Amino acid sequence: MRVERQKQLDDWCPSVPGLNAEAMVEAQKHVDNLTKPLGALGRLEETLVRLAGITGKVVPSIDRKAVVVFCGDHGVTEEGVSAYPPEVTGLMIRNFCDGKAAVNAFARRFGAEVRVVDVGSRLTELPAGTLDRKVRAGTANMAKGPAMRREEAVQAIRVGLELALETKEKGFQLVAVGEMGIGNTTAATAVSASLTGTPIEELVGRGTGINDVSLKMKGEVIRHSLDVNRPDPSDPVDVLTKVGGLELAAMTGFILGAAAERLPMVIDGVISTASALAAIRLAPGSRDYLFASHLSEEPAHRVLLEKLGLHPLIHAGMRLGEGSGAVLCFPLFDGAVAAAREMATFADLGL
Amino acid sequence: MRVERQKQLDDWCPSVPGLNAEAMVEAQKHVDNLTKPLGALGRLEETLVRLAGITGKVVPSIDRKAVVVFCGDHGVTEEGVSAYPPEVTGLMIRNFCDGKAAVNAFARRFGAEVRVVDVGSRLTELPAGTLDRKVRAGTANMAKGPAMRREEAVQAIRVGLELALETKEKGFQLVAVGEMGIGNTTAATAVSASLTGTPIEELVGRGTGINDVSLKMKGEVIRHSLDVNRPDPSDPVDVLTKVGGLELAAMTGFILGAAAERLPMVIDGVISTASALAAIRLAPGSRDYLFASHLSEEPAHRVLLEKLGLHPLIHAGMRLGEGSGAVLCFPLFDGAVAAAREMATFADLGL
Repeated sequence: MRVERQKQLDDWCPSVPGLNAEAMVEAQKHVDNLTKPLGALGRLEETLVRLAGITGKVVPSIDRKAVVVFCGDHGVTEEGVSAYPPEVTGLMIRNFCDGKAAVNAFARRFGAEVRVVDVGSRLTELPAGTLDRKVRAGTANMAKGPAMRREEAVQAIRVGLELALETKEKGFQLVAVGEMGIGNTTAATAVSASLTGTPIEELVGRGTGINDVSLKMKGEVIRHSLDVNRPDPSDPVDVLTKVGGLELAAMTGFILGAAAERLPMVIDGVISTASALAAIRLAPGSRDYLFASHLSEEPAHRVLLEKLGLHPLIHAGMRLGEGSGAVLCFPLFDGAVAAAREMATFADLGL
Repeated sequence: MRVERQKQLDDWCPSVPGLNAEAMVEAQKHVDNLTKPLGALGRLEETLVRLAGITGKVVPSIDRKAVVVFCGDHGVTEEGVSAYPPEVTGLMIRNFCDGKAAVNAFARRFGAEVRVVDVGSRLTELPAGTLDRKVRAGTANMAKGPAMRREEAVQAIRVGLELALETKEKGFQLVAVGEMGIGNTTAATAVSASLTGTPIEELVGRGTGINDVSLKMKGEVIRHSLDVNRPDPSDPVDVLTKVGGLELAAMTGFILGAAAERLPMVIDGVISTASALAAIRLAPGSRDYLFASHLSEEPAHRVLLEKLGLHPLIHAGMRLGEGSGAVLCFPLFDGAVAAAREMATFADLGL
């Protein structure tokens, strides 16, 4: 069984190349020569060095940017875990396509393209502009059994993987990963609890903004879902299958594919970060291609980022999803690259 | 004496208008109607509401941005408190004018004008592009006596005040405050210790990057300077006079002037934030016009921001000064305004 599973994984889990160590050394030297105290640009310097390791360029080009928003519905919404009805997933897909959500406003301002992917919504007619990669119309209620079948989770991972290859082929140089799915902080928290072994009460948050009573119930629904399904923490695909979501699995695939293609990625809040942890459990090298953007209000986000060893640049108490925090971080990357490209060295100043 | 001092202050300490409460209520309503969970944009929402209170507009225009970099030298550098020689202040003034420092790279990328003001450097010939508002050529060594005379501190405050009025007149809508001055984390830390009463060892940091031995000595120099000068914490001008700096006093004046002119301001690291605390001690209402940008590596910065009740959006471990962190924050403001201007409401979606 174990061997068979591994074979099944091998079919789609790509190998991830290592970073270009030579370019990283050169980038560090370049950064150290700029007219500023050593290390004074803090994590922007780490960002530049890692971008060099990914792209092989001391000063990389990151002008062509995209955010890929994976959308899916969640059967667990029937347990009353969200402040919004599940129909809002579909309404927001339309809103993305109309260019009128927060992620669209940020993406326009910061020069990024928004790609909307339906991997698992309940919409029967997709608005123009949506990429139709639906695996199934929403998950089953994980409080009563597995959210989906293993083949469906693998298929959703493949959707993400293919999207990553396609995004790279189109010439994008920096990508953000985002999602939409009413009920998906519940799924992401269950995935986080399973993969990290952290007690649920340290992870569960208010998602779209539920009250204290609902928050308590949400924790109980997550505990019950884990009890009913008993996902195997050593098998991230099993975790995504039983208590995950279609958009969560697709983001895991996207992260694996982007890493395989040497495409730097910016993750967003708790949901994309749960997908990222699943990805690095499948292919540890994929972590090197990931950048944290912001620290969400959701308590699980901090726990996940610590496990990933990533430090978010923005602390704004946001909890919106859509990739909005990741896109908001794009200009900070642009600023870092502009500094590396345009600053004088101390030698230029005659020192 | 107290009355005379008050009169002297009255001459240049402008009155600060209150925020427009009606516009803030309208802005909050607008933000709450957008297609996102209530409060999901976190501190970007607080930013939008306060910008409305400052400008009177529910969706303000902040396209015209500037960063004003106040420069001064510090006599205390002869105590060996910096990793760089004092000549670097002058070299960096040239670098700003050549457009080749970090702040220039960020400002170009984010559409802001850089204004370089010499309020107290030792340069005898200023590079083209510098605004010459020199009050004196560097402070005296505060470890041996007051950094300057009270009239000089007041004159430097006036420089900042006038610059703020001029910046408003030129039509700028959002301004960042920055500085350059080798030795000025030593002065800013002394000002912070005096104004907040916090023990020096909780405040002192590595500035441009000094080693452990120099760090210990820097703390002792600050303690000694406070002992020698005994600044009166209830009189911020006395504190700036005795253990401050010309660029610190000018930034205090700039903050007072910008608040009086209803111009929203973004402060940078520990030095501009020490100036801001002096400003709000002189005119408490000026706090309403201030926005924090980033959290610096300098330990005093966190203490000062807590006193001011301001929350920085960027946590990048930066410690460069120049206004670099403040300018790096400009796109986050642009993003917030773009969201307020362009997002649909739930009513638009038929919900």
